[in-house]
Amino acid sequence: MRQWRLAERPIGRPLLDSDFALVEAPDPVAGAGRMLLALRWLGFEPAQKGWMESFGGYVAPMEIGEVMRGMGVAEVIESHDGRWPVGTMVAGMTGWRELLVTDGEGFDPCEPDLPPEAMLGVLGIPGLTAWHGMQAIGRPVAGDTVVVSGAAGATGSIAGQLARIAGARVIGIAGGPEKCAWLTQVAGFDAAIDYKAGDVSAALKREASGGIDVVYDNVSGAVLDAMLARIAVGARVVLCGGISRYEQGGRIDGPGNYFNLILRRARMEGYIILDEQPRWPVMRARLAGLLRSGKLVAQQDVVEGFEQAPAALARLFTGANRGKQLLRV
Amino acid sequence: MRQWRLAERPIGRPLLDSDFALVEAPDPVAGAGRMLLALRWLGFEPAQKGWMESFGGYVAPMEIGEVMRGMGVAEVIESHDGRWPVGTMVAGMTGWRELLVTDGEGFDPCEPDLPPEAMLGVLGIPGLTAWHGMQAIGRPVAGDTVVVSGAAGATGSIAGQLARIAGARVIGIAGGPEKCAWLTQVAGFDAAIDYKAGDVSAALKREASGGIDVVYDNVSGAVLDAMLARIAVGARVVLCGGISRYEQGGRIDGPGNYFNLILRRARMEGYIILDEQPRWPVMRARLAGLLRSGKLVAQQDVVEGFEQAPAALARLFTGANRGKQLLRV
Repeated sequence: MRQWRLAERPIGRPLLDSDFALVEAPDPVAGAGRMLLALRWLGFEPAQKGWMESFGGYVAPMEIGEVMRGMGVAEVIESHDGRWPVGTMVAGMTGWRELLVTDGEGFDPCEPDLPPEAMLGVLGIPGLTAWHGMQAIGRPVAGDTVVVSGAAGATGSIAGQLARIAGARVIGIAGGPEKCAWLTQVAGFDAAIDYKAGDVSAALKREASGGIDVVYDNVSGAVLDAMLARIAVGARVVLCGGISRYEQGGRIDGPGNYFNLILRRARMEGYIILDEQPRWPVMRARLAGLLRSGKLVAQQDVVEGFEQAPAALARLFTGANRGKQLLRV
Repeated sequence: MRQWRLAERPIGRPLLDSDFALVEAPDPVAGAGRMLLALRWLGFEPAQKGWMESFGGYVAPMEIGEVMRGMGVAEVIESHDGRWPVGTMVAGMTGWRELLVTDGEGFDPCEPDLPPEAMLGVLGIPGLTAWHGMQAIGRPVAGDTVVVSGAAGATGSIAGQLARIAGARVIGIAGGPEKCAWLTQVAGFDAAIDYKAGDVSAALKREASGGIDVVYDNVSGAVLDAMLARIAVGARVVLCGGISRYEQGGRIDGPGNYFNLILRRARMEGYIILDEQPRWPVMRARLAGLLRSGKLVAQQDVVEGFEQAPAALARLFTGANRGKQLLRV
């Protein structure tokens, strides 16, 4: 079986092919009470680059030579009195390897009536991240104006839809006309701003003339600063991520308009979805209900073939992906 | 009688003498139900420069030629069946004028057993600002580490003492050995960092090695960024002001370390004490109790003579003041 290992740390620069090494390893053997899983899907997150860098230390650092850490969906192909029978699809931290052995700890069975790869998107880290950030920190109510950056991404697209379902006016910021069209025509956003097409500040002034009640930021940099310039009194600024920072080295400018948090009596708050793990089943059940009812739509960007894993991860940082970046093994 | 009027707006630059004009005006006359007040004290706030600039628009803009807006303590010297008898000391927005007429609306009588000028410091805007920011937003508990910037100022010194009273370890950042000595020897801070003496980051690493649970920022700029670099998981960053920004023009850098709000699951929040006006009497009663019991100490910096009002205000921005800047008429 094959596995991808970490070869170099991409600190302060884009990912390179040479950061990863594809190696052959002996097939693992499942002992009593354990299961052999075959990888079927991989899901990709911006945070993975941070793990490779050992950035910020909010999860255990990755070591050079370690199997690349990541979420996946796998099928139970052998069970030696293990937790689930053969044929069960499960999601968890599979890592980038074609086969693995587990007792099931840290894995969840997929929802049987929904596509298994939903566990990597709407029902996985992106959906849970969107749920907690929007419902517990942003807390939009009917009539609020909500702006989401990175809005066509896996997390942003769900966060914006949750705000729309809560009765808010939702504006998405994304790169390019195709992503913007998807936001307004498929995901039900009220407006979309193409940051590649020009002045985000002017567009926000037009689309959020009464001020922004909830900012949901995935991007950082100039886009965050433009949003902070237009927050309303009592605004909640949800810090989910900062994709624009992940390939920069050295000293990175902060948002000069943070001072509006005083003038507009507002709050800016970050979170890590791993902290909320005890509440994941409750959050996932709500998201699954919205998915079944058709109120929430998900976009997936599927790359084929295990050997494409590094290229699939790199798509997140170039903005090439359309919605949740997946790989089908 | 004399009054000081706004002559120029000090936008993006230090205050100048020519921003103010001292003019003679006819003595006002108190009609029925009204009182004639004679100014006894003026108190000075960094926000007054913002009012002169019409900065941010969070209070009604000042007009050129208008009597300089400001807090003061005045004595009732005539009462035509007014709210309070002759001899009462009251505090409120007197403006910079030697005499004024009022029906009492917006004024509060001073605490009879405490010095009247306390209504401009511990019992006034600085004390109320410190109380709300620390008790409602920062919420230190026993064992927390709290760092206050601008710690020797009127607000910072009270904010730090409230954290000390709540059982926290309190570190103050101030400019110069004299202010730092006052913090540790008189105000009961556990440590003081002189930002003029060198590397604030290294000093914070030493004094707050376990991380900062509550940041109370009056300064902005590099000091805020150094504090954000060391926040603990779950930290609360209270944004009270940004004295380092008030004399800068153009684009001002933001705190690059704001991203730690995500990594450390922390919150940064601003407020305007005018919003809390309905709760001022309750807050003031608590502060008065602490003052009477000697648990809270206040430092006052008194300039003499009405004609010194512009010079007294300017002292806030050079860091010349030692505690609450006052003027005795």
